[in-house]
Amino acid sequence: MIKTICTSLLFISPIVFSSSQPNAKDDSWRKLDPNKSVVMSLPHGKIIIELATQFSPHTAQRFVELVKSDFYNDEKFYRVIDGFVAQAGPQDGSKKDKKISPINIEDEFSPKHPWSFTRVQDKDMFAPQTGYKDGFAMGYSPGTNKAWLLHCPGVIAMARETAKDTATSHFYFTIGQAPRYLDRIMAVFGRVVYGMEHVQAITRTASIEGSSPIDKSTYTSMIDVSMMSELPKSEQMSLEIQNTESQTFINNLANKRKRENPFFYKELSTNIDICQTPIKTRISRK
Amino acid sequence: MIKTICTSLLFISPIVFSSSQPNAKDDSWRKLDPNKSVVMSLPHGKIIIELATQFSPHTAQRFVELVKSDFYNDEKFYRVIDGFVAQAGPQDGSKKDKKISPINIEDEFSPKHPWSFTRVQDKDMFAPQTGYKDGFAMGYSPGTNKAWLLHCPGVIAMARETAKDTATSHFYFTIGQAPRYLDRIMAVFGRVVYGMEHVQAITRTASIEGSSPIDKSTYTSMIDVSMMSELPKSEQMSLEIQNTESQTFINNLANKRKRENPFFYKELSTNIDICQTPIKTRISRK
Repeated sequence: MIKTICTSLLFISPIVFSSSQPNAKDDSWRKLDPNKSVVMSLPHGKIIIELATQFSPHTAQRFVELVKSDFYNDEKFYRVIDGFVAQAGPQDGSKKDKKISPINIEDEFSPKHPWSFTRVQDKDMFAPQTGYKDGFAMGYSPGTNKAWLLHCPGVIAMARETAKDTATSHFYFTIGQAPRYLDRIMAVFGRVVYGMEHVQAITRTASIEGSSPIDKSTYTSMIDVSMMSELPKSEQMSLEIQNTESQTFINNLANKRKRENPFFYKELSTNIDICQTPIKTRISRK
Repeated sequence: MIKTICTSLLFISPIVFSSSQPNAKDDSWRKLDPNKSVVMSLPHGKIIIELATQFSPHTAQRFVELVKSDFYNDEKFYRVIDGFVAQAGPQDGSKKDKKISPINIEDEFSPKHPWSFTRVQDKDMFAPQTGYKDGFAMGYSPGTNKAWLLHCPGVIAMARETAKDTATSHFYFTIGQAPRYLDRIMAVFGRVVYGMEHVQAITRTASIEGSSPIDKSTYTSMIDVSMMSELPKSEQMSLEIQNTESQTFINNLANKRKRENPFFYKELSTNIDICQTPIKTRISRK
């Protein structure tokens, strides 16, 4: 009976990892580019980030420069709020950050017309259209021809002060229900494609009212943050990401929308929350 | 500068815990009832669940019976998928579960007309209306006069087979973006009000394609699951939960919707994702 329960629930899960044999000819997976990938080593595991260099070029470039200069090594996650964000950067009192010039925000962009992407949902609560482009969850407004990266769980974005063009080096991962109200006003520049469970295990730094303050010595440190391409070959990981432009992916989305399995015994909405439809990663066989 | 970054981002966080002094007269907090609370001890921390006895009475009652009989002690989380669910119950091969009769699903209910709750959002992607009732995120359809508990992060619900009335003892916590497509077809019966970071730290059991299978010996066990009211007084926690029917809470929601802080430098949607607006918990001063 337990097995049946597992099968049923696994069937409806959009994020379990396929055990099907890959078809050598199909285009449903693409290789992760090591030049666009950052490996962050935490005490409890490794995280791999794919940078959205095509959508937030200057912000991604800033992050790459800092990573290459070992800027983040030994820095800490100093603001980690369960269900919201894990934010890191030089500790309060550090002078490191002051040497870094603020950058102009990349909050949205005007793509070349006509814009096309793998459409997921119209009239999403926060965007006229949502869809995927190159594996990233995007919003799009046909009225203004503006596109932007969404704050789905597992994205990385620059923190900033109240004024928009104030980001320097501090960044956050989203670790809970997508804070979509931050879309279009923050510079999202990548997403976690491997090790999200390690992001979730970063020590929370916010205590609840009435409990003892959190001891700063327990904050999670970044042991090393490096470009994948600059690691010794033996330490690089060869990953593949679902190709969100492939027909297989598009068909899977259409099937998900229908909810045809008898598990869905009632007429349900055919809407899809793009942030609840993650893109799978797998380790290459090479 | 770092401090300013913190302040800005803290301001926009809907889930940071207030440090304001409580006003003895106000009704913005309510006491958690130890008779409706379950304490789950995991190796890495304690979780407290508030049961929705008023919305899913039979399912909550089943869970209480099992908890009181020590049914879950030493059982494991055997299906933990990052961003989706952490599911637990007797291990495959166990005969314990077979002795438990399946229960009729409590998927939605017809409240006494007229239904009133703290309205959050109309035309949510999965419900005609969303709002809070007694601290729980609910959906409501005025057309059919049906209400239901939403699959926001941190709810607890019964797992089942394909047929709807097949749940016995296996349950799951939602640990990622709300799987709202499961609303109205699963029996949600409570939510985590304390220790959600410990739910997030439950060991994942799903490996990605190409990686080694997960060793079952690493699965997270429940050391003890007990009703709060049956623990020795010294082990009970005195918690307070935001009162979602209070004027303070309603005002906060209205303020959140406006996005008036200069941090929001652009005209943004005034919509609210109810699952991204958690209800705060605090420890009573007594």
